Amino acid sequence: MRFAVTIEYDGTDYHGWQLQSELPTVQGAVEETLERLFGSPVRVHGAGRTDSGVHALGQAAHFDATWAHSTDDLLKACNALLPDDIVFRTVRTVDDDFHARHSAVTKTYAYRIYQSDIRSPVSRRYAWHVRSPLSVDAMNAGAGRILGVHDFATFGQATDGTPSTEREMLKAEWRTESDFVIFAICGTGFLRYMVRSLVGTLVQVGTGKISPADFADALDARTRSAAGPTAPPQGLFLESVTYRRQRETDV
Amino acid sequence: MRFAVTIEYDGTDYHGWQLQSELPTVQGAVEETLERLFGSPVRVHGAGRTDSGVHALGQAAHFDATWAHSTDDLLKACNALLPDDIVFRTVRTVDDDFHARHSAVTKTYAYRIYQSDIRSPVSRRYAWHVRSPLSVDAMNAGAGRILGVHDFATFGQATDGTPSTEREMLKAEWRTESDFVIFAICGTGFLRYMVRSLVGTLVQVGTGKISPADFADALDARTRSAAGPTAPPQGLFLESVTYRRQRETDV
Repeated sequence: MRFAVTIEYDGTDYHGWQLQSELPTVQGAVEETLERLFGSPVRVHGAGRTDSGVHALGQAAHFDATWAHSTDDLLKACNALLPDDIVFRTVRTVDDDFHARHSAVTKTYAYRIYQSDIRSPVSRRYAWHVRSPLSVDAMNAGAGRILGVHDFATFGQATDGTPSTEREMLKAEWRTESDFVIFAICGTGFLRYMVRSLVGTLVQVGTGKISPADFADALDARTRSAAGPTAPPQGLFLESVTYRRQRETDV
Repeated sequence: MRFAVTIEYDGTDYHGWQLQSELPTVQGAVEETLERLFGSPVRVHGAGRTDSGVHALGQAAHFDATWAHSTDDLLKACNALLPDDIVFRTVRTVDDDFHARHSAVTKTYAYRIYQSDIRSPVSRRYAWHVRSPLSVDAMNAGAGRILGVHDFATFGQATDGTPSTEREMLKAEWRTESDFVIFAICGTGFLRYMVRSLVGTLVQVGTGKISPADFADALDARTRSAAGPTAPPQGLFLESVTYRRQRETDV
């Protein structure tokens, strides 16, 4: 039986999602938990990698296992065994042709900036501290340029064996929430480092270092050297992954 | 010259505010920083203790030191030396009769509850996870009973050499913010454990275990055994301390 799960994690203490020998990763911690529960190794397929230090509120993954009880019991059993910094928010059964990565339609990320003269101890694990005032209007003028289908080679590397660096962006918006400036971005796929590279470059637009037109030129340049600095990982959250509605076969 | 500072800290890794030999405390870390900066020991007087694991957005404190430059330079110098989990948000000069504890008029705390079936990895350091649904109306009916002057012996111990357990509460209100239920409480002073004991008991009102009238009876009982459990420290934030407006002598 195939199970699809949504996973929340605090990425601070992990070397990203993807399994690495000798290093703690989220996939590794989840697979260890499932092996303890089922008594034999279980391979977990994530919707995509997150880099070292990046968080998730709604990472998606699937795995195959035999389970005689309800999905709610499975959820509780997994969450009792998972470490404090990882939790399954939902578990459901899916068809055998469901694949967390291949079936994904969109992914949504949030990037949180704490904008203040003074750093914030209680925000330091979950936001990037930027001292300079930011023009959200200028950042949105820049962000608007990435909507639709573009070659994003400036902002990241192709992953997962697909050489194309073309992706489609459906939403890219900055908003202010008290001392935070938050980027919400939704697309059909993302290159490696893409959200953090976009954020780092758009912050240069926000501080006036470059103009929205310069940002558009950087996008058109299609070379990594045209990008600004890559924003640090702790501000980034994989918020959700969407899938086409499908027949659910609950146990 | 006397300086008043407001301090933000992540209390997770400290044994509370107050100096203890051999244990890391916030006061200890601040005094070490000031000693490094000024080259001789500096005693720091806080507005009040916070317990082990409790956070602050606006703890207040004062100290005496000689500083030839601006308060803004002092702020920057301190923040460059303070550890990542402590920061001075403001520094100002005050009259010699100003005392962070004795001159304080009110203190405001916030207590954050994450209310959900499922625990939240990214909220675990800054909120108490409560699985049961909570009636905010019932909790506010209970909280309303503590407004004004009362003997709060049920909810805490007298501190700082003052035997009286009478305190005056000016505000005590619960509100909902997405998956969080947040308590805001302002008073002229607080007993030790008082906010966490009130929160633990009001959560019993929120789950229906006791009624708002039972809560009022517990307050009237004036004995610790009448209180519910003490809520854990990680949800508690000392938000601000207020002082009467006074002549500011900025350097």
